[in-house]
Amino acid sequence: MPPPIEEEWPAILLVRPQMGENIGAVARVLLNFGLISLRLVAPRDRWPNPKAEVVAVGADKVLKGARVEWSLDEALADATLVIAASARPRGLEKPVWGPREAALNIRAALALGEKPVVMFGPEAAGMETEEIARADAIMTLPVNPGFASLNLANAVAVFAFAYAEARQVEDLPSWFRDSESEPATQEELEKLFGHLEQELEHGRFFHPDDKAALMKRNLRSIFLRARLTVQEAQTLRGVIKALTIGRGGRKKDDL
Amino acid sequence: MPPPIEEEWPAILLVRPQMGENIGAVARVLLNFGLISLRLVAPRDRWPNPKAEVVAVGADKVLKGARVEWSLDEALADATLVIAASARPRGLEKPVWGPREAALNIRAALALGEKPVVMFGPEAAGMETEEIARADAIMTLPVNPGFASLNLANAVAVFAFAYAEARQVEDLPSWFRDSESEPATQEELEKLFGHLEQELEHGRFFHPDDKAALMKRNLRSIFLRARLTVQEAQTLRGVIKALTIGRGGRKKDDL
Repeated sequence: MPPPIEEEWPAILLVRPQMGENIGAVARVLLNFGLISLRLVAPRDRWPNPKAEVVAVGADKVLKGARVEWSLDEALADATLVIAASARPRGLEKPVWGPREAALNIRAALALGEKPVVMFGPEAAGMETEEIARADAIMTLPVNPGFASLNLANAVAVFAFAYAEARQVEDLPSWFRDSESEPATQEELEKLFGHLEQELEHGRFFHPDDKAALMKRNLRSIFLRARLTVQEAQTLRGVIKALTIGRGGRKKDDL
Repeated sequence: MPPPIEEEWPAILLVRPQMGENIGAVARVLLNFGLISLRLVAPRDRWPNPKAEVVAVGADKVLKGARVEWSLDEALADATLVIAASARPRGLEKPVWGPREAALNIRAALALGEKPVVMFGPEAAGMETEEIARADAIMTLPVNPGFASLNLANAVAVFAFAYAEARQVEDLPSWFRDSESEPATQEELEKLFGHLEQELEHGRFFHPDDKAALMKRNLRSIFLRARLTVQEAQTLRGVIKALTIGRGGRKKDDL
């Protein structure tokens, strides 16, 4: 019999999951398809969750190894490629992939040393736009428009299956930048965005106020699509400093 | 928004399903991917099953429309193409397909007026070899050899997703016989097999006894692989009669 498959990447991130049974079912189906890295952001019920353990069956390893964080920032800090499972959301300029496409792009990213995370929203409600905005790309499933709401574990099952199939594919997509350069992590990007937004607020850029969130999302999307390297992220922060010097830019609270 | 998808074929057959929750989860994920024909053979618990209804959420239509039979014969009687979801079983000479391959072959079959049924075994145990032997082909999932046991609804989700994707594929496989000829149903094939086996028993063909079941499965596989038409099935029964006339063949209890 071939050896077991246990791959650390991609990590699967459940954002604000509600039912322990679903978390356990996700752990099980991840291991079914050889994925072992589970992350949880702010699970609704206490953790560890006995209901999750019952349903995980033989996948306790995945469950016990799950990384639990209270903020999405922490859960994504080390990620260099973030894919959000979601129906195509309005007003976010991001690539939209099917599961197979997402899986192949993740394989290509891994070959370049990236750290991909695929995130799934909570039961029923799904992720907030602000959460989806964190992603480099959106993954949509070809669901029935008349009945689109998938069970969480089934949605993860579809991705995990598509990913297992992608392991067999030799000819990977090549839209990624060259492998010489180190990709920026979400943490580094957050510092860049924080710095930029702070200086733009200082410059009264975000008005009217009720448009500010949208304007920030759109700016974020531009730089996410650029797939910045560590070096590029640092360069851009230098650019911001250079642009703000002498206008009373607030150097002392640079992030 | 595009219209809802509700396709009668392929039908999904759960063989001796145990937990109502799983049956309900299957109904839900079928409708998620636009499939509405659910069949159950000998469900363990009473039917209708309240636990199934809770989990099916908005898919009550699929659940209420489910066809419940007590024997696999009845549940497969009208099928002309049967696919069994199973790990590759030893000693069955049948084509083995992945979910995508199965989905594309089903699409090709539908275009020729076939009636495809995809069957899934009970939780834990899976189907008996005799049950899998009824299938024209086996569908296997690319699971982790170290942890292969999938939740029933997750397994159905993987197929239903692959099927939804196959709807977009123009270029379908063409291994099927021409569309002029009417495909034989499982009921017609069962009559043929029953007739043949009866006459072969009469001729002391099946010995030693402990090999009889295997010998019957192998014979069955040959004719299943031939993808017989109605006409061909009748012709073969005529052949059996012709071969057995005058040897004290038991014409009176011809099936």
